[in-house]
Parts: sequence; C-alpha cells; structure tokens
Amino acid sequence: MANKIRAGIIGGAGYTGGETVRLLLHHPNVELTFVQSRSQEGKFLHEVHTDLQGDTVLKFTSSFDKEVDVVFLCMSHGESKKFLTENTFRSTTKIIDLGNDFRLGDSITGRNFVYGLPELQRDKIKMADNIANPGCFATTIQLGLLPLAKAGLLGEVYATGITGSTGAGQKLQDTTHFSWRANNISAYKTLKHQHLSEISQTLKSLQPNYQSDVNFIPWRGDFTRGIFVSSIVESEKSLSELNQLYSDFYSTHPFTHVADSTIDLKQVVNTNKCLVHLEKEGNKLVVHTALDNLLKGASGQAVQNMNLMFGLEETTGLKLKSTSF
Amino acid sequence: MANKIRAGIIGGAGYTGGETVRLLLHHPNVELTFVQSRSQEGKFLHEVHTDLQGDTVLKFTSSFDKEVDVVFLCMSHGESKKFLTENTFRSTTKIIDLGNDFRLGDSITGRNFVYGLPELQRDKIKMADNIANPGCFATTIQLGLLPLAKAGLLGEVYATGITGSTGAGQKLQDTTHFSWRANNISAYKTLKHQHLSEISQTLKSLQPNYQSDVNFIPWRGDFTRGIFVSSIVESEKSLSELNQLYSDFYSTHPFTHVADSTIDLKQVVNTNKCLVHLEKEGNKLVVHTALDNLLKGASGQAVQNMNLMFGLEETTGLKLKSTSF
Amino acid sequence: MANKIRAGIIGGAGYTGGETVRLLLHHPNVELTFVQSRSQEGKFLHEVHTDLQGDTVLKFTSSFDKEVDVVFLCMSHGESKKFLTENTFRSTTKIIDLGNDFRLGDSITGRNFVYGLPELQRDKIKMADNIANPGCFATTIQLGLLPLAKAGLLGEVYATGITGSTGAGQKLQDTTHFSWRANNISAYKTLKHQHLSEISQTLKSLQPNYQSDVNFIPWRGDFTRGIFVSSIVESEKSLSELNQLYSDFYSTHPFTHVADSTIDLKQVVNTNKCLVHLEKEGNKLVVHTALDNLLKGASGQAVQNMNLMFGLEETTGLKLKSTSF
Amino acid sequence: MANKIRAGIIGGAGYTGGETVRLLLHHPNVELTFVQSRSQEGKFLHEVHTDLQGDTVLKFTSSFDKEVDVVFLCMSHGESKKFLTENTFRSTTKIIDLGNDFRLGDSITGRNFVYGLPELQRDKIKMADNIANPGCFATTIQLGLLPLAKAGLLGEVYATGITGSTGAGQKLQDTTHFSWRANNISAYKTLKHQHLSEISQTLKSLQPNYQSDVNFIPWRGDFTRGIFVSSIVESEKSLSELNQLYSDFYSTHPFTHVADSTIDLKQVVNTNKCLVHLEKEGNKLVVHTALDNLLKGASGQAVQNMNLMFGLEETTGLKLKSTSF
Repeated sequence: MANKIRAGIIGGAGYTGGETVRLLLHHPNVELTFVQSRSQEGKFLHEVHTDLQGDTVLKFTSSFDKEVDVVFLCMSHGESKKFLTENTFRSTTKIIDLGNDFRLGDSITGRNFVYGLPELQRDKIKMADNIANPGCFATTIQLGLLPLAKAGLLGEVYATGITGSTGAGQKLQDTTHFSWRANNISAYKTLKHQHLSEISQTLKSLQPNYQSDVNFIPWRGDFTRGIFVSSIVESEKSLSELNQLYSDFYSTHPFTHVADSTIDLKQVVNTNKCLVHLEKEGNKLVVHTALDNLLKGASGQAVQNMNLMFGLEETTGLKLKSTSF
Repeated sequence: MANKIRAGIIGGAGYTGGETVRLLLHHPNVELTFVQSRSQEGKFLHEVHTDLQGDTVLKFTSSFDKEVDVVFLCMSHGESKKFLTENTFRSTTKIIDLGNDFRLGDSITGRNFVYGLPELQRDKIKMADNIANPGCFATTIQLGLLPLAKAGLLGEVYATGITGSTGAGQKLQDTTHFSWRANNISAYKTLKHQHLSEISQTLKSLQPNYQSDVNFIPWRGDFTRGIFVSSIVESEKSLSELNQLYSDFYSTHPFTHVADSTIDLKQVVNTNKCLVHLEKEGNKLVVHTALDNLLKGASGQAVQNMNLMFGLEETTGLKLKSTSF
Repeated sequence: MANKIRAGIIGGAGYTGGETVRLLLHHPNVELTFVQSRSQEGKFLHEVHTDLQGDTVLKFTSSFDKEVDVVFLCMSHGESKKFLTENTFRSTTKIIDLGNDFRLGDSITGRNFVYGLPELQRDKIKMADNIANPGCFATTIQLGLLPLAKAGLLGEVYATGITGSTGAGQKLQDTTHFSWRANNISAYKTLKHQHLSEISQTLKSLQPNYQSDVNFIPWRGDFTRGIFVSSIVESEKSLSELNQLYSDFYSTHPFTHVADSTIDLKQVVNTNKCLVHLEKEGNKLVVHTALDNLLKGASGQAVQNMNLMFGLEETTGLKLKSTSF
Repeated sequence: MANKIRAGIIGGAGYTGGETVRLLLHHPNVELTFVQSRSQEGKFLHEVHTDLQGDTVLKFTSSFDKEVDVVFLCMSHGESKKFLTENTFRSTTKIIDLGNDFRLGDSITGRNFVYGLPELQRDKIKMADNIANPGCFATTIQLGLLPLAKAGLLGEVYATGITGSTGAGQKLQDTTHFSWRANNISAYKTLKHQHLSEISQTLKSLQPNYQSDVNFIPWRGDFTRGIFVSSIVESEKSLSELNQLYSDFYSTHPFTHVADSTIDLKQVVNTNKCLVHLEKEGNKLVVHTALDNLLKGASGQAVQNMNLMFGLEETTGLKLKSTSF
C-alpha cells in the first residue's frame, strides 16, 4: 500500500464531495485518508451518503492530515480561497479545487492554479501542482466549441442547456422542492450564467481575436444528473469537414467522443464521458453535447486531473458502468 | 350575486389552501371573499400560487371577514383548534376544517364537528354546521373497506399505500428534495400512520365488533399528486358477490366508482374521483383504491362537503378535467 | 338542450381526440353527439380514455352524424384532407382540423380554412366556417414573436423548445418507451421542424419584409404535458418598452399573459393559457413562452376557436383547474 | 490474457444482455468473446446499447464460439431450454441462465442447474456447472425472508413490491409507454406473480413444514431501475433479536446488508447490493428490502455466480459506483 496516493477531501458532505468519495474509494491507486466535514463530523460516511452502506467504515472528521499527497476541495464557491488562506498543506501536496475560486487566474501565495480541462491543456495539467477544476456547464459548452476555436473559426454562439437538480446542490430551496421541480422546466440566469467568464477565457486563449458573445440560456431540468447543451454557430465548412475537425481534435482524448448518430443525455449519466454530435442546415452548425454534471462536470474530471498529475493512465478508476436507464 | 355562498380561506398559502382557492374561484355558486395568510399577507395570490396568473387579482390578507357563510381552515395539523379558540365567526358561519384537529370527536365551545366522508354519512353532513374533513390516506383506505365493514364482513387488513409529494406539504425537507425523491421509493411511519385512528373509528362505527388491525405501510412515491392503496383482506364471498356489494354501496355516490378493469393512479389525478377495483385469489380479496390526495383526499372533498351542507348538487364545481397523462 | 351546439369528433381514440372529448363533455353549450374511431369502434370511451370512468356512457362509433354543427378532426397528419374528400358533411357544418393539412392555405372543394390562432386573427376566426388549428410548437413560438413581428421589429430568431411526450402521440415508439425517455433529454428535427412553415407564414403576414430565419431546435423532455420555448432575438428597444409592446398586444386576449416574473412550465399545465416572459441583456432579448401542448397547443385552442365561431364567450368551458404540481 | 475467463452472451440486445455486457467489459478477469443477437447481427454493440459509445468495438454476431468458458443466456423466458436443446457447448462450458426455464428443478440432458442465490447456497454454487439465476422480485422477497425461514420462524407473508420499468423489458407495450407510466402507479399479477413458485421452493427447502402463503402484490413504478418490497409477517421475537438473526445470517455475504436506519430505493440503484431493514409494531414484523432489478436482480447476480463458480473473489468486477441521485 506504500505506493498509493494518499488523498483527502475537504467538504465531503455535499454532492461533489460525496461523488469524489465514491470514485476514490474504488480507485486502485488511491488511499482515501480523510473526509473532512464540519457539519457532519463524527458521523459515518454512509449516514450522509447512504448509498455507501457496506462500502466503508470511514467517518467524517473535522481535523485532517496536512501531509497527504492530494487534497480535493469540495466546498461552496468562494470558500476555497478562504480555506487555503487559513490552512496550510505540505508544499508538495497537490490541490484540486472543485469550486470556482481559481478558474480565472487567481492565485494565493505559493500556489498557482492550472485550469483543469484536459481536452484543452492536458500537458499543462500533467505538470501542475494545483488545479482549478472547470464548472459543469463550462465543461459542456467548451467541449462543444474547442475544435472550432482552435481552428479560429468560432463566431457568435447561441446555446441552450439543461441541467439536473444535483447541479443546484444539496441545500433545500424552492427550485429543488420535488413538488415544484417534478415535470417542470424553467430558465434561470438567462444570458448571465457565472460560467461564461471561464468559457470566454478559454475561447480567447485559443482564438485570440474572438470578440463575439456566447449567448447562453440555462434551464432547470426535471431529472437529477446530467447536462445537455445545443449550440448554434455559423460555419461555412461542410458537415463532413466539421466532423473531421472534431474527430481529429478529440482522437487522443479518452472520455470525449464525437458520435455519428444523435445523442441523448442518458448515454453519459454515471460516466465520465462527454458525447458530441454535429448537425448542419445551411450555414448553421448545431453542436449537441452531453455529460454527467457530477462526473465529467465535477468529481470525475477532478479525478481525471489527479490521474494526469500523478502520471497515471488517464482513465484509471473512471471506467464506470453507466446507469443506462 | 346576492345568492352566492360567501366563502373564506384561513391558511391559503399552503398546498390545500391553494387547491381550495383553485376550486372556489371557478365554483358557480361561490364568491371567494378572502384568502388569509399570515406569511404571505399583501401578496397577490398568483405570486404564491403562480398557476393563478391571469385568474384573479385577489391578495392574501391577514384580517378577514367573520360574517362569511363558510370558512375553510387549511392550516397545519393542530392549529385549527387554537385558531378557533382565538377567533370567533358568526354563529351561522359553517366551518370546514382540513386539518386533523376534530376528526376524532373533539369539539370546541359551540361547535361540534361531523366527520366529512360523504360515502359514510352524507345525510349527517347535509345537516352539519361544522365538518372535520378526512385525511388523504384515511379517505383512500376507508373507501376500499366501507362496504365490507357495513356488511359486517371485515377482518384483518394488510394495506400498502403510496403517496405523492404534495402530501408532505410545501415545507422544504430532506424527503421532498428533488435530488432525493426523484426515482426513489421509501417507507415511513410503518404500521403507525396517524390516519389509522380515524379509519378505526369509522370501521367500528359500521361493524361494532371489529377488533382486528389495519396493518398499513405508507410509502413515499416519486410523483407529486395521488394515492394508490392495495389492501388484502380475507373473504369467503365470491368476487362477483363482492363486486355487487361494492357497486350497490357506491351506486348513489357520484365520485366513487367500482371499476371492472384494473385501475391506475393517473385515472384520477386532478379529479375528485375515487376508483375502486377488486381482485380475488382463493380466500384473499385485494381492494385497490386510487384518488388525488389534494382533491378527494383534501380540498375537493371539502368542497363536496360544502355543496352538501348548502343543499347544492354534490358535484357542483367538481367536474374537473383530469390531467390524464 | 335544443340550443346546444351539436359536436362530433373524428378520430377520437388518440391523444388530441381524448382531450377534445374531456373538454366537450363538460362544455356548458355543447352536446357531444358522436366520437368516431375506426380502431376502437364499439368500446366505451372510458375503456380507451380510462380517466373518463364514471363521466360518460358514450361509445366509439364507426358511423357518424353528418348533420352536426361542428366536427373536430383529430386524425394523424395528412389524413384530414383524405377524410374530407371521402366524407361530406352538411354545408353548414363547421370543421375544425387539428391536423396539419390545411395550415398553409390548402383547401378542398367548398371549404376554405382560416388559420386558427386567435391572438393573430380573432375576427377572421369569428367569421370562419373551417379552421386549421395551429401546431403546438407553432403556437408557442408564434405567441412569443407576434408583437415584435406586428411592430416590424423582428430579426433572426434562435429558439430552443422542449416538449412533453404526449406531443409524440399514442403510438408505441422507441422515443416514448419509458425506460428510454425517463430522465432523458434529446434533440430531434434540428433546424427542420415541420412547424417552421406555418410560423414563417404568420411572421411574413405581419412583417412582409421578414427574410430572416427562425432557427429552432426541439428537444424531447422527460415529462408528459407542456412546451417551454426560449427564443433569442436582437432588439434595440428597452425591456420596459418591450414589455409594454407585449402587454398591449395581448391585453384583450384572455389566455395569453405577459408575466413580470420568471415563468415555469407547470404554471400552465392542464390549462388553456400561454405565459410569456421577457428578459434582456445588452441588445439581446430573450422571450420565454410556455403552454400545454394538448390544450392551448391543440384541443383547448380548437375549443377556443369553436367558441369564437359560434359567438360564445371565448373562455367558455376553458377555465380549467391547473394541475399545479 | 491466457488466464482470463472467456465469456459469451446469448441474447445480448435486451436489457439483461446489455447489463451483462456492461459488467463483463470492465471485469478484470474476463474476456468478452462474443455477444450474440439474431435481431441485431452485424451492428456495433454501441448502436443498440448506446451508452457503450467509446467503450468497445465489438459487434453483435449470429454465430458464436462453443468453446468458451462460460455462457450467459439472456433470452426471453422459455427460450433457454429450447436454445440449449438446439445448440451444444463444450461439456466444460459453464452455463448461467438468466431466464426462468431451470429455476424449478428442470434439467436437460447432461446439465443440471443449481439455483443461483448465493445467500441461500453459496457452496453449492461454487461447485455448480450450470446456474439458474433467480428472478428479480424473487431475489428481493427471498432476501427479506431467508433468515426467518432458516430459523423455522416464518408464517404467512403479506408483501407489496414496486418495480422499475426495465423489469418489463425492452419491448414496446402500453404499460411502458412514457405518457402512461410517468407519474403513474398500477398493480399487476395480483397474488399470482410467476416468481412465487421459486420463492416457495426456497422457503420449503429451509423450513420444510412451511404451509403458509406468500401473498404478494406487485406494482409498476414510475422509475426505471430498482425494486422495493415491504413484507409483513408475525413474529414473537423482539426487534433486537430479529436484527441479530438477520445480521448473523448475512454477516459473510458481501452484497446484502442489514441497515439500522430506514432505507430507500436509490441507495442501491446501479449497484449489486441488497439492503434489508426491519421494523416492528406489536407482533408484526415489517421487512423492507431494496435492490437493483438489473444487477442483484439479474445480471449482477449472474456475474456474482460466475465469480463463485470460477473461484474468484465474490465481489470482483461488482464494486459499482451507485447513481445515488
């Protein structure tokens, strides 16, 4: 066991914390050393994440081991920076932040963060000590646009996306009340979702002259897991050229697949995959993308980044059986 | 308009309050005079019950008219008695309590309550000044057993029921969080649901020697509206005799129907109906019953009781289009 | 009863047929004379539309009365024209076709059809003898754009819409299998939905110089009833000017409401309403619209058209209790 | 790779076939040699089981290798016996039949089948050459009753269970139409589910004098995966004695856990676990059990049986990440 990566989780009682626990418990190269939670201290993990019944006897702790190899920060947005200011890990401890504190280039003393989208910059991630893990909608939208931006072909984007309720977190709120959300659809943060900044940052890094807008309307869906986005952009290229462009771009990336048939959300639920499908009418290209917001959109991508940082095969511990139905 | 029944609602911001509003707004013989709510005072009804957009310009009030003809109490269980102690209506004002305060024979000075299950005692309801409206599971289970008890044939009952999330009310709680309840099933209050007392009271009134148990397991369902119950009882009678017994019993009751084919929950959702279906193997009779917990299980039955108390046709304002799907 | 409108339904076994039955059975000015269905001839209506248990003793017929006042054609797309060619009604019998055969100006000998969108041309409908009832997505999208087109302000449209499974009809198919559709999202007919033609026809009638595209991506939703569409268009007008424009346009229309707060799908499910809500960022206007695909999107609008054609109050029989949850 | 178990699947296009593929593809000790399907011959697996996009380039075949180490029969009930009569495998090839042909002691020339419920008879399974894999409801109900029957304490059982739509298979039928099943509950095969025979066979093997009935009412649930059963039995033992009895019985079984808190269905969805929870009022014991019908109720248990037959650790390839939400 000496060679295992010693990993800890800060904020392990929430949805991304729980999902990270689920992945790390069965990861062949990881020893889950601690799962910190102030609100649930002393309880067994399975008392909060009740699906873990029979899987582990770990308990939530308030204190934690600062000598671990890697720490996953699974806190509310805005809390990671505060936490790292008040708590110091060993300098060689790698940090993977699932919040949004460091995605736009912010740093703290001694730690610079690399934006952890492997399809954008896998090599940088391999060399990184600290990762800012992308947002769920940000990942979905970017994976639909990266090849175009890389080729300098991206214009104005009109995107609509729908997300499962787990994207809204564990906190009780009116929009996650079952009686309201079941069988319902609604829009929120129309044209001003907070992920637009990190999307814009990426697009401009690939296509420096990109001045257009990503017009994005997020919808709340009446399901629990998954994100589906359809984006419209103009393109003079033919559908087969575009399929080639996308296939080439993703050919070495094990989780993102360009599908030649129509896709649906449940193809990816409970997996770390992202599926991309292109359709074209006239000069309008439509890019459909789908992923699981808690996996490729959060904890799965975090573990993928960990694998890259520690020199493991990228897919280790992430070949997950889909729910399928 | 002088001849209209002037009706008010106390506690109009919750689920049963909202459903009572929906019914009374379109009731041809009712003028909805006030909808009281302490928590939502001053807001338009459609700000809370947002489906009422375009239907009414009424606002929630904190004060209310004590001279109305009928008041619906749509408060949390235990609050009706307190409210009626602190507030006095005109002596001729009829009270319909949707809570559970008066179902077991309790009264307050000047007001005795009649248990408002029309299929049990329509004539008493017609003469009543105050009604204790039955519980939702209580209505469903009783409508499956009344004919047997009336005939003195009821033995021990083994019942399982499933209810929609609206049965748990508007309050945010872990068991109504969408991420938890979607696609989920769970049991609660196993063999000790609070409605067992009113069920037992009714059964003993019909079959005085009834000493057996109603063993009832309630489940939380992953839908919003409706209750479905399957009850097993022993019976030596043939299925056709039993169907005759039930059909005769309900022949004059406009909302409860004995179906000769299998039933499903959505046949009754958004209606005031209760469907009953019988099956038999050996000496075991299974009675399936289904209704909408907010209508025949609450507000619809309350309006049905109002119709009876005021000498109206029992179905007035209650011929509702089902959702069907 | 002599003064009642005598109405018949051709193709009464499908979803829009059943919904039309539900509405007409309780319509105060209508006598439902026959419900024709070749596939279900001889069965009670409630054997097919099982929610009608206890509501009617009508049976499906194969023959039908050609002397009725109005006939609703609820057949598959393409079958209405064939049917009217092979069957002749009394010349004064009004026809309301819920299919798509006559929406684009087609006629048959002796019968010209008026496009039945009351918010577009209520006066023409009042004078019409035959109505081509609009499509469900077509109604939703048009009600979001009519005021802009009327004002000559409409540019290119980017719309995404999501529809319930009842929009796909009763026929068993892979995309309506519960195991597939539950918790799923998928796109179909991307940029080439068949309703685009009738939308375009309307927009050009209001804004003759309209040369832009309506880029529309339809999604299949994991719910049964309802349509929600978000459309992006450019506009130099302020949000308050636009709200005024829309409110003025719909001020005399009883079913379409401009909401000043965010809307959600379930506000309209099981009603004949359409809700419209506007949001604006920069020069991008987003119009959200929601309606029930079987009511305002089909059978409800058909009955609304009947009311107008027969000089009744437009809302007669259409003040429906929403499902709400 | 020489040491891997060479496995094939007959009938790989259905739900249990697909789920077996998902498990075997990632099983560390298995090489999936062929996936036979007459209806889908020549297609890639991911054209039918679309979640497999990117996971495998295998195609469905009509012919198959008769020299494999183990064959999973994933055919419709009644077809396995016919298939084995018409097709002969190497005598050392082990057969695991997921259908119901051999559960009640039937055999064919040269092959006797052991009932594959590890919690009942793990040692027999280890020695078996052919396995009759139990039914989904049969597994759920038995795992709730085995400890009582083993102790000779079982009396009459009153059980209600609810199952996901995948239990009804892939075939299009009215009861799996999304528009019907969504938000719906219905009973079927009341008191005469076909799994009662194998349940009875097991109970009598453990408690030879068992003469009582298992009165079982199955319900169709409005979700895709999972089974939840609540069973009522009489018991004079205390709850703590019963918890001890159950915990002792399952202490060496890695997938069946006795939970000391209330359980819900989603704790086990997408896992091979079964959870059991006991409650008691008076002399009535209620046993709640939950499992995933496609895993512990079908393909997962089949792979568990394969592990036992080949001397592998019982949990190999079956430590699955739950869907959780």
